[in-house]
Amino acid sequence: MAKLKATNKRVVIEAVEPSVDGGRFPAKSTLGDAVVVSADVFADGHDRITAVLRHRSSGTRSWVEVGMTLIGNDRWQARFTPDDLGVWQFTVGGWVDHFQSWREGLSKKLEAGVDVSVDLLIGGQLVENAVSRAKGKAAKALRVLAGSLSDSGKPVSERSQLALGPDLDELMSSHPDRSNETFSEGIWEIVVDREKAVFSTWYELFPRSWSSDPGRHGTFGDVERALPYVTDMGFDVLYLPPVHPIGETYRKGPNNTLDAGPEDPGVPWAIGSGEGGHTAINPELGTIEEFRSLRDAAHAQGLELALDVAFQCSPDHPWAKEHPQWFKQRPDGTIQYAENPPKKYQDIYPIDFETDDPEGLWLALKGVFDHWIGEGIRIFRVDNPHTKSFPFWEWVIAEIRDEHPDVILLAEAFTRPKVMHRLGKVGFNQSYTYFAWRNSRSEIIEYMSDLAEVDTFFRPNFWPNTPDILTEQLQTGGRAAFITRYVLAATLSASCGIYGPAYELTENLPLRQGSEEYLNSEKYQIRDWDLDHPTSLAPLIRQVNRARTNHPALQRNGGLVFHGTDNEAILCYSRTRHDDSILVVVNLDSHHVQSSWLDLDTQALGIDSDHQFQVHDLLTDRRYIWEGPRNFVQLDPGGIPAHVFRVRERVRSEESFDYFV
Amino acid sequence: MAKLKATNKRVVIEAVEPSVDGGRFPAKSTLGDAVVVSADVFADGHDRITAVLRHRSSGTRSWVEVGMTLIGNDRWQARFTPDDLGVWQFTVGGWVDHFQSWREGLSKKLEAGVDVSVDLLIGGQLVENAVSRAKGKAAKALRVLAGSLSDSGKPVSERSQLALGPDLDELMSSHPDRSNETFSEGIWEIVVDREKAVFSTWYELFPRSWSSDPGRHGTFGDVERALPYVTDMGFDVLYLPPVHPIGETYRKGPNNTLDAGPEDPGVPWAIGSGEGGHTAINPELGTIEEFRSLRDAAHAQGLELALDVAFQCSPDHPWAKEHPQWFKQRPDGTIQYAENPPKKYQDIYPIDFETDDPEGLWLALKGVFDHWIGEGIRIFRVDNPHTKSFPFWEWVIAEIRDEHPDVILLAEAFTRPKVMHRLGKVGFNQSYTYFAWRNSRSEIIEYMSDLAEVDTFFRPNFWPNTPDILTEQLQTGGRAAFITRYVLAATLSASCGIYGPAYELTENLPLRQGSEEYLNSEKYQIRDWDLDHPTSLAPLIRQVNRARTNHPALQRNGGLVFHGTDNEAILCYSRTRHDDSILVVVNLDSHHVQSSWLDLDTQALGIDSDHQFQVHDLLTDRRYIWEGPRNFVQLDPGGIPAHVFRVRERVRSEESFDYFV
Repeated sequence: MAKLKATNKRVVIEAVEPSVDGGRFPAKSTLGDAVVVSADVFADGHDRITAVLRHRSSGTRSWVEVGMTLIGNDRWQARFTPDDLGVWQFTVGGWVDHFQSWREGLSKKLEAGVDVSVDLLIGGQLVENAVSRAKGKAAKALRVLAGSLSDSGKPVSERSQLALGPDLDELMSSHPDRSNETFSEGIWEIVVDREKAVFSTWYELFPRSWSSDPGRHGTFGDVERALPYVTDMGFDVLYLPPVHPIGETYRKGPNNTLDAGPEDPGVPWAIGSGEGGHTAINPELGTIEEFRSLRDAAHAQGLELALDVAFQCSPDHPWAKEHPQWFKQRPDGTIQYAENPPKKYQDIYPIDFETDDPEGLWLALKGVFDHWIGEGIRIFRVDNPHTKSFPFWEWVIAEIRDEHPDVILLAEAFTRPKVMHRLGKVGFNQSYTYFAWRNSRSEIIEYMSDLAEVDTFFRPNFWPNTPDILTEQLQTGGRAAFITRYVLAATLSASCGIYGPAYELTENLPLRQGSEEYLNSEKYQIRDWDLDHPTSLAPLIRQVNRARTNHPALQRNGGLVFHGTDNEAILCYSRTRHDDSILVVVNLDSHHVQSSWLDLDTQALGIDSDHQFQVHDLLTDRRYIWEGPRNFVQLDPGGIPAHVFRVRERVRSEESFDYFV
Repeated sequence: MAKLKATNKRVVIEAVEPSVDGGRFPAKSTLGDAVVVSADVFADGHDRITAVLRHRSSGTRSWVEVGMTLIGNDRWQARFTPDDLGVWQFTVGGWVDHFQSWREGLSKKLEAGVDVSVDLLIGGQLVENAVSRAKGKAAKALRVLAGSLSDSGKPVSERSQLALGPDLDELMSSHPDRSNETFSEGIWEIVVDREKAVFSTWYELFPRSWSSDPGRHGTFGDVERALPYVTDMGFDVLYLPPVHPIGETYRKGPNNTLDAGPEDPGVPWAIGSGEGGHTAINPELGTIEEFRSLRDAAHAQGLELALDVAFQCSPDHPWAKEHPQWFKQRPDGTIQYAENPPKKYQDIYPIDFETDDPEGLWLALKGVFDHWIGEGIRIFRVDNPHTKSFPFWEWVIAEIRDEHPDVILLAEAFTRPKVMHRLGKVGFNQSYTYFAWRNSRSEIIEYMSDLAEVDTFFRPNFWPNTPDILTEQLQTGGRAAFITRYVLAATLSASCGIYGPAYELTENLPLRQGSEEYLNSEKYQIRDWDLDHPTSLAPLIRQVNRARTNHPALQRNGGLVFHGTDNEAILCYSRTRHDDSILVVVNLDSHHVQSSWLDLDTQALGIDSDHQFQVHDLLTDRRYIWEGPRNFVQLDPGGIPAHVFRVRERVRSEESFDYFV
């Protein structure tokens, strides 16, 4: 028999939430948002329990304690609102509350007219024991109360009144007997990010194509001059593909051809040349001073600059010579280039995370982040993180967070779900998703449900297109598809983005049929965009983004409810947060007018199903008076095939100036 | 920055199952059953992975390894069949398999007609590295193969053939490079019980009422003579309420009255008198020799004796004097009796698990189990375990399991779900359930789904009645209710039981309206049962239990599918295990004939929906030929309002003697 370590502590604590893999990874939260902690806390028998939540910033030693509330089925809940970025910790404690158990029993006995003289003596003891846990006035008051409860000279009715009175309750609750307290097994962690980690609106552009002078390579200066174009549309993150020198060896030509001419600018992701690697700037884009000028101008206009971190090298990257041990060597003495057999990508050397020098490699990669953080960059879009080792990410993200908790990393991983989830667990603040390929009503509903299941650690960022992804839907759905896909992205996910101007100019020609690559992709060549084209969706995107900016309901994930429709082609959902409700109706068919009766969950919308309410379309500024759950919609792909309604309930009083709040 | 511990290992392992609370508690299995282990095993990138399951009996040091199979979505699976009772352990390991990754790439390149000369050199190196991991012939063979792959003097076609051939594959799979192997974080445990822990059929009786001579207190000898009555019905566990001396102080009279007369036998759960406590025998039942004789006779007839362990004391129990510190003291010098304010149970002293002497208490309580285990008892029904501390149970069950892994404990806890679940987690092998109060079709379906969610650690035992529970359904539903409730218990749960002869004699009078207590309950008085009453359900119970004995499908939980019916009063479900399928149809309305079309899930039943099949009612021996998913049933509460069908598919060949297998 193992040595007996008996205990007389009886409370057990289970199922603490939020928790990722039982506490193996931290959950995610946002500065300013309350963290709602819940746990099962119970003991054998029927005694009353008291449970507390303890929390602290991981940088501080002392815990702050909050009482928890029993919300039913042995589940307790409390909340705290972190006031700083970074890692926070929490635990749950609980104890058998003998005073409250006794008080409850006494109350029942008195009600039943049972003799309570011995009970009052028991209570007197409990209160007497509390004296030593109190100080000053409280101790004195407890001693007096203990004496009164035990004083058989006093009438039972008087003592009972003292026993059940609020004074004793408050004194005892402030000085509880916690000698039998137990704690949750482990300490839970939560990462508190700034708001942009969850609510952000991205615009991706290739500076090379933003020259005011067609034919000339675009520069940081050109982009700086174009900033108002981007900010006017309502974006708040400007993401640039890699800005580093591009390799010459095996440089790709237009449309991914192998024979680049001397004028071809190359692929920005083939990073590194004689002019430097991941910390250098492609001279064709400008100087570091021009980069800083762009950064400052963008930030001044409320547009935060996001850089691309792609941990791979062109054959000309300095690391290929300086650190050959970070790459796979081939028996012929060359470095292994990227492959997806039988395809070869000879312009790219992948990094070998099985190197014998993991310390050197990890520190160098972290150095890349450190360099650009030093240049004032706080948002990074990480290219293909799923081809770099998870232990590396877990380490480097924790390090960066520790030093710069305001940094946000977006994981560009389009791969198997478990892999994408793991990247969220190890710390990526945002993730690209499968949104681009979820088109039908049932696909979208199912996918949103999948995302809800991982929302403690996986924050979606919905992109209807990227330079690598021109979906069949966009290729064939015309302008209607571009409108609906952005409306969906911008209202289903608190973070979204587009690759422009290809998006707002509804660029839809694929490299070839069946391909999702753009024809004449900017990845390989400079494009000349007609930003002023009359069919540009920029004005509509502005309206959608304005709805996002003005409506808290669209600034977090959660609060999503799908409403019934009679027509598979019509998708209807609402987002609700605090008192704000947005109702979205989308015609998923880009080719035909579709109509449907909606079957609204009025309770979810916070409206009284017996009264009229107003829906105000934020895209068209039209207003409709609806009543009850059944209402009719008809959406024409020739116009704006979506509604983004603000839902306003009619106020009761006819005297109000505006009838709807 | 924390000290950098970089690694070049890339495989991660998540979500290992079976797992209870992330491995905090062992899961449960049964000797002879395969344990199916699964886990997410993956790395960054697209390399091939190999995963292994390692398992061992906790008593042995060395692990046994089994290769795992990728079943999709990065999930791997393997199984092992423990060959001994007790605790088993398992872990999962995985590594990047560079040889298989290389082989796959080579194959694709060859198919595409790409030059592979450098690839063959890479393969040669991989094989050369394997030489040191092999011995003797294998090492020699690997060296020869490595040489051939690298031999540029040989034609590429010949070397490619060797590279992709089965010999090299097998040699490399037997000598893998596991230098980058990682393991699941932690070791998982599983408790392997004997079959009766999951599949058991209980009969509870009060020996006091089994006297052959009405008026005389029944004895062990009386019960021994009645054993054939119980075994004929097909039960395999005979459970007796506490057999210990019963307290005199505050002894209860008939129907829980407070004024017991000198002839009243008292409540068996008021344990302890001057004649001893939990290890003594009530002299009215007989001697220890007579107890042993009953035990041996029962075991010889295939009926295992189960005792009641109720950790509470009558005021006359020796512990009340010898160990007053194990009870709560009241200020008036008395011991605190049981209460549920304002109700008092002065005949019972609950044990105080907050005693200052937990070691002494725990060892004494374990001594009770040890005593009866010493008397050859291996099954215990534990009374109200939810009023004793969880840490105690976790300790004592682990200790008992360690010494006697064939012991089975049934938790008699009718309380909140989390509390009941925790008892399963800390080790109870079986648990009473809410079954008695689940009556409607939707209630039953929902409850079975709740149970399925906890089936790794919570094994249900379905009782339609107990001496404490005469449900409203049984009080008002007549004979039909008694039939259907037993059919449901016996076919929805692999373990079930009844309190007899009250059950088979359809005793249905409550103490008063609205009460679930029996009138003239055996808990307080001796009853005289007419076992030969012509309306006894004993013959029907025999048929039901025979179905359980003959059909593997009814001997485990799981394999349960509910089938559609057009009528809420008709419940239809099947259980399937291996090749055995049982289809049950029950009329839940005890007062009216009900009929319904069934909408069978033929795939779940393992039958071809295009062919006829036979259903053979094991209760009535009637056979029906059905076809396709839609079939009609009608069930009369005046007869047998349930079908328990064996499902037999028609064999294809008309020449077979019996058309149905």
